[in-house]
Amino acid sequence: MNIDQLSINTIRVLSAEAIEKANSGHPGLPLGAAPMAYTLWAKVMNHNPKNPDWINRDRFILSAGHGSAMLYSLLHLFEYGLTMEDIKNFRQLDSKTPGHPEYGLTTGVEATTGPLGQGITNGVGMAMAEARLAAEFNRPGHEIIDHYTYILAGDGCMMEGINYEAVSLAGTLGLGKLIVLYDSNSITIEGSTDIAFTEDVSKRFEALGWETYHVEDGNDIEAIEKAIKKAKENLNQPSLIKITTEIGYGTSKQGKSSVHGSPLGKEDMENLKKFLDWKEEEFTVPVKVQEHMTNLVKMGEEKEKAWEEKWEAYKKEYPELAKELESWIKLELPMDYLDSEEFLQFDKDYSTREASGVVINRLAERIPNLMGGSADLAPSNKTYMNNREVFSKENYKGSNIHFGVREHAMAAILNGMALHGGLRVYGGTFLIFSDYMKHSMRLSALMNKPVTYVLTHDSIGVGEDGPTHQPVEQLAMLRSMPNMVTYRPADARETAIGWYEALNRKDGPTSLILTRQGLPILEGTGREALKGGYILKDTGDNIDIILMASGSEVQLIYKAADILKEKGISSRVVSMPSWELFEQQSEEYKESVLPKNIRKRLAVEAASHLGWHKYVGLDGEIISMDGFGASAPGELLFERFGFTVDNVVEKALKLMK
Amino acid sequence: MNIDQLSINTIRVLSAEAIEKANSGHPGLPLGAAPMAYTLWAKVMNHNPKNPDWINRDRFILSAGHGSAMLYSLLHLFEYGLTMEDIKNFRQLDSKTPGHPEYGLTTGVEATTGPLGQGITNGVGMAMAEARLAAEFNRPGHEIIDHYTYILAGDGCMMEGINYEAVSLAGTLGLGKLIVLYDSNSITIEGSTDIAFTEDVSKRFEALGWETYHVEDGNDIEAIEKAIKKAKENLNQPSLIKITTEIGYGTSKQGKSSVHGSPLGKEDMENLKKFLDWKEEEFTVPVKVQEHMTNLVKMGEEKEKAWEEKWEAYKKEYPELAKELESWIKLELPMDYLDSEEFLQFDKDYSTREASGVVINRLAERIPNLMGGSADLAPSNKTYMNNREVFSKENYKGSNIHFGVREHAMAAILNGMALHGGLRVYGGTFLIFSDYMKHSMRLSALMNKPVTYVLTHDSIGVGEDGPTHQPVEQLAMLRSMPNMVTYRPADARETAIGWYEALNRKDGPTSLILTRQGLPILEGTGREALKGGYILKDTGDNIDIILMASGSEVQLIYKAADILKEKGISSRVVSMPSWELFEQQSEEYKESVLPKNIRKRLAVEAASHLGWHKYVGLDGEIISMDGFGASAPGELLFERFGFTVDNVVEKALKLMK
Repeated sequence: MNIDQLSINTIRVLSAEAIEKANSGHPGLPLGAAPMAYTLWAKVMNHNPKNPDWINRDRFILSAGHGSAMLYSLLHLFEYGLTMEDIKNFRQLDSKTPGHPEYGLTTGVEATTGPLGQGITNGVGMAMAEARLAAEFNRPGHEIIDHYTYILAGDGCMMEGINYEAVSLAGTLGLGKLIVLYDSNSITIEGSTDIAFTEDVSKRFEALGWETYHVEDGNDIEAIEKAIKKAKENLNQPSLIKITTEIGYGTSKQGKSSVHGSPLGKEDMENLKKFLDWKEEEFTVPVKVQEHMTNLVKMGEEKEKAWEEKWEAYKKEYPELAKELESWIKLELPMDYLDSEEFLQFDKDYSTREASGVVINRLAERIPNLMGGSADLAPSNKTYMNNREVFSKENYKGSNIHFGVREHAMAAILNGMALHGGLRVYGGTFLIFSDYMKHSMRLSALMNKPVTYVLTHDSIGVGEDGPTHQPVEQLAMLRSMPNMVTYRPADARETAIGWYEALNRKDGPTSLILTRQGLPILEGTGREALKGGYILKDTGDNIDIILMASGSEVQLIYKAADILKEKGISSRVVSMPSWELFEQQSEEYKESVLPKNIRKRLAVEAASHLGWHKYVGLDGEIISMDGFGASAPGELLFERFGFTVDNVVEKALKLMK
Repeated sequence: MNIDQLSINTIRVLSAEAIEKANSGHPGLPLGAAPMAYTLWAKVMNHNPKNPDWINRDRFILSAGHGSAMLYSLLHLFEYGLTMEDIKNFRQLDSKTPGHPEYGLTTGVEATTGPLGQGITNGVGMAMAEARLAAEFNRPGHEIIDHYTYILAGDGCMMEGINYEAVSLAGTLGLGKLIVLYDSNSITIEGSTDIAFTEDVSKRFEALGWETYHVEDGNDIEAIEKAIKKAKENLNQPSLIKITTEIGYGTSKQGKSSVHGSPLGKEDMENLKKFLDWKEEEFTVPVKVQEHMTNLVKMGEEKEKAWEEKWEAYKKEYPELAKELESWIKLELPMDYLDSEEFLQFDKDYSTREASGVVINRLAERIPNLMGGSADLAPSNKTYMNNREVFSKENYKGSNIHFGVREHAMAAILNGMALHGGLRVYGGTFLIFSDYMKHSMRLSALMNKPVTYVLTHDSIGVGEDGPTHQPVEQLAMLRSMPNMVTYRPADARETAIGWYEALNRKDGPTSLILTRQGLPILEGTGREALKGGYILKDTGDNIDIILMASGSEVQLIYKAADILKEKGISSRVVSMPSWELFEQQSEEYKESVLPKNIRKRLAVEAASHLGWHKYVGLDGEIISMDGFGASAPGELLFERFGFTVDNVVEKALKLMK
């Protein structure tokens, strides 16, 4: 048996053994797709397992994340640091080999995948990042950023809406260095793809601007290699290589959906080993394969070494540019400016979306690797950087991205760009459409990536567009998400602070929740807002009642406090732009803002009440939106739904009784 | 000017005037798409404005809901009951003419649209419902259900991921009576579609199994009519008719993105009227057009009359079938069975997903119009009806739907089926992937449609699949949604009660949140669970502490109460499967379950704590999941994250100190 075949079989057997031992996992994909994965990793990709952070490495994403066992087998064989012990611990507590690949946990895993369609879309983001960096930094004869992004995707990924969005945008952008290997085994969990998915995938990709290839036999690694090499040559279009495979190859369940997501079982393990003529002990890599892998790893090291020489030449020729690239990769920030008074100064009152637009444009002048856009709502979201060009097929030097009406793909593309490195990214849409991108936002949080979401039109303040466009429960949705910082500023200054927080977060995403309507700049707002909740004013020494609010409702409690004062009631006005940041403060600080002994508490927010009881308790009250909105001018809606100074005063008085 | 042209111009002018008066709205689409809409409504569609509930009417959905002014103009002209006063009140408080079309509010509006891509997907659901009912009830010479579903969609709809999912499934199912008019004006909010959307839409639809047509001049109503008629003839494939139009036709902003979403302004209103040679006063329908419309409405009445005759003949020939159809349309339920003890009886302990599967199969024997499926997870979601066939291109009599890996489309298709009427629908996926379909679930709630979502694998109990597949914040996401009933049963009996509630809801959706892992049947569970929260047991007369939980965690507090009793602490065990149902109870009932004076309260739920403070207050405690999960066997994860009887006891004791 030649070494390629033996290596492929090693991947197959190791994967199946890991799943068998865990008694849990998905053997179907590894058995069918091992040849294409091996071909890619061994014969095509430029990567150096000894330095998984090499900026110019080819990227590989297993979009079909349930095939994790195959990825772990590759990472073990290619000496990425996964030991045989790790493989044996597949899907066990605290292992490096969880059920689906997790970025950050396992060296060599480029993206957390499993929720279908996400990985392929991350890949589009990576290819966009590569194109941007290459356009910015490469010079003739000095292609310092010059790598491919490879995706392995299955039928499931091809059915998810997000993949079509991403594929359509990639086609428009002509991302020639993006290559998708489509493991076409025509089987999904419920049976043959015929029952639900008869589309001509290749023709669809062509309609969306891609070049396509077809390898008819998934075991023919020469054909696979040839197709990939051809795909690499086309730098004007992304490429799809459809590779027809047999799910669960070599077992009695070959070609059946039953092999997708369950261990093979003893008998079929034996069948497989017999079919592959496998003689090794359990969890053993043949010596020949080990040697072969060691050679491949050396080749990888040499590839990076060659690049390092190019990099040295580049540094010599373009020292400033080299410094700049290093700064981009480190995501350096102009902290002097961000910490200056200037950063918090605004010439007039703004809606917080406008204030965010002002901030974005100030940042655009000072953060060259800031890149972002909107899902076809830039004029409304105020996300456009005026002094920057548009990122397009013709001009990869642009920083403004037209995502099209594709919220879900936007978020996953931002994840991909953040994963690639070198860029600081943001994306905008209406808060209501955070619904469309919820799961990709969750993946930003799960992958600890500092993506900034600019979510405008944040309440019934949307006005005439009506209940379909008026968020109610979206704030609760975002606040309940682990590792998401939700920030709803009360005025322009708090908006700048929201951006400050977003920029300085290193380990997770931030959602900025912004108004459509204008808001006055309030006395007392400022850097304290970094604490997430803080006292704007006390109207007396002995506080009778605490008023708290976020965003556009802070002005209401601010004014209500004055009226209550006239009525002899002392109140505290607390602005709470971010529960998450407030919760990060010391117990002492939290107690100083919201003393446990003051039980008269009133919260005001034009959104679902869900969660506010944490701060008002069983004895407090909440003025909230607990039904859907309506279509009318925003001011009238605030009145209709009780978001007025008068109603705050009334409810506070009632509480005081 | 001929009457067709004059009618089209009336639609254009009325729409623009309404937007102008409101000083808010989207004139671009009505000006460009009026000819196709008029052609469809006047020359093609079988509808009777005098009976908008006619079951066999052709359905029309304006998927590009921002063009609402055009729809309202049509509804006014076609005498659906919208007055000129209503038109003048466009986008005003309490009007029947909100910013985006709202189902239930405005007669003749078949679906709430605005969030792009939803309407076209609802249309797929409607066409599926029509196919199902036709297959079930039609007999040779008695085509009692026999109508088309028409969608008007724009570029925005064509970019959203959900549309691709729906289009792909519609192609697989060969829904020949589904026809999409694609208003292709090549303009979106950020500019020309070239900047983000260069795909060949028609070729894409062909790849997905559709027949396509192209009308090159959107003003050529003969060509439009001809294309629609040809599309109608193809009963084996859904049809796309791409119609090239000019956005903002007849104004100075024709063909520009600036005309998409802002009123024309005085000058351009004049330009338009001059261009159209329009002489009427503001908000005036030309007499000739009024007469023409009255004639068209009469023709509609006659069409229904003809159908009524067919219906009478059908009733005579097939009285049993006719009765059955009427029962389907009324969504009648076997209440005797649902109210019987039998319905709550299970032969053994089950995971709640399995219990749900048992219930579904019991229902399938008694509710003939029950129809549903899963997004390629039926074996896991237990959603398959064993005694029913599969709905497929070859067999529209099937009740089991293979949605494919298309969660978002599944939810919007269920909405469309529910909107169509005659069917009781449900759809399943993992709870984690409720993320993918969040917005369509919201639209079920906004449209008051009784769709049932079967959401299994509801916590870290998922186990080895790891954090990508373990819900944390999804419960809070669903609980914060207005008009969604979220139901997380503690055992098989509560699962049956959850289904009971879902079936009996008439005005909104229900989410059943179900475990992967097995759960014991608990003493005391039963019909009280309909109240959303109820006492399972008190371990003494004077309650020291209230323990509350939902789903799989109820067994923990149940056991912990016994241990606490041994330690001299009396506790109350409250099962809270549904906060929404609990909140619907009287204040007295709620106080009787959770007396305000008992402040020692402990809630236990393997999900985000968000919202629980409503029940535990400032002095209580919550054992919750506030980070992401991990990959390991589920039992180990429950232990790791503190969901054990011991930890409940420990936390309760701490609270008692």
